[in-house]
Amino acid sequence: MKLGRLNHVGIATPSIEASIVLYRDTLGAEVIRAPFDLPAQGVKVCFVDTPNAQIELIEPLGEASPIHGFLAKNPAGGQHHLCYEVPDIHEAKAWFEAKGAKVLGEPRIGAHGTLIFFVHPKDMGGVLTEIMETPREH
Amino acid sequence: MKLGRLNHVGIATPSIEASIVLYRDTLGAEVIRAPFDLPAQGVKVCFVDTPNAQIELIEPLGEASPIHGFLAKNPAGGQHHLCYEVPDIHEAKAWFEAKGAKVLGEPRIGAHGTLIFFVHPKDMGGVLTEIMETPREH
Repeated sequence: MKLGRLNHVGIATPSIEASIVLYRDTLGAEVIRAPFDLPAQGVKVCFVDTPNAQIELIEPLGEASPIHGFLAKNPAGGQHHLCYEVPDIHEAKAWFEAKGAKVLGEPRIGAHGTLIFFVHPKDMGGVLTEIMETPREH
Repeated sequence: MKLGRLNHVGIATPSIEASIVLYRDTLGAEVIRAPFDLPAQGVKVCFVDTPNAQIELIEPLGEASPIHGFLAKNPAGGQHHLCYEVPDIHEAKAWFEAKGAKVLGEPRIGAHGTLIFFVHPKDMGGVLTEIMETPREH
């Protein structure tokens, strides 16, 4: 497997609304996409475009959101995960498993509408890593 | 100011040598550049290329390295900072200061040989943010 594009950096935030102000007014982001809920993953999501990659702002959605624990440790928010693209999600899953890396669950539809899975940070140098099938636009 | 390219994601590691094995053999990175010391910043650095952005592996260099504190909290390593490009570093510094964001020190030469500064995470949604003048190659 070849290392694919860095699709996005996932950044947890207690408030997407407040983060949008930060990215727009202080960091100068010109393209901030409409936030939407991803109930299956317990997050509200908002993509901010840079010229070469995206920032994925993620806010907890619901009581069981996996982001609550992260924000308890990092109340102001912070870097949560990295996401790389692959051409074939099932091939990628088999690859990571063959390398002994812990894949968290079965591939499922992610925020870009293509299949994704996460790899446990313990096998990724402390970085929670999302692997996603490349969207067709690319 | 416009949000520039996401030049790199800085990832702290207790061992660049071990991280190179991870990025090469498990993540499939094809271009891993030669590690080098950046004594002024107290780090050893190694860039890993993805097709659209770089991963900057950073390991503590010397007793006073600012990375020791991060690794004490995150012994396996983890996401340390994000770096965005700007066309003019001095203009960018004035911009961030005018927005009330805390710029950490004066612009200095960074790992790509161009001027950089860091912005305090408290003003960047919990994300330690590096701003760098775009290298001439781009």
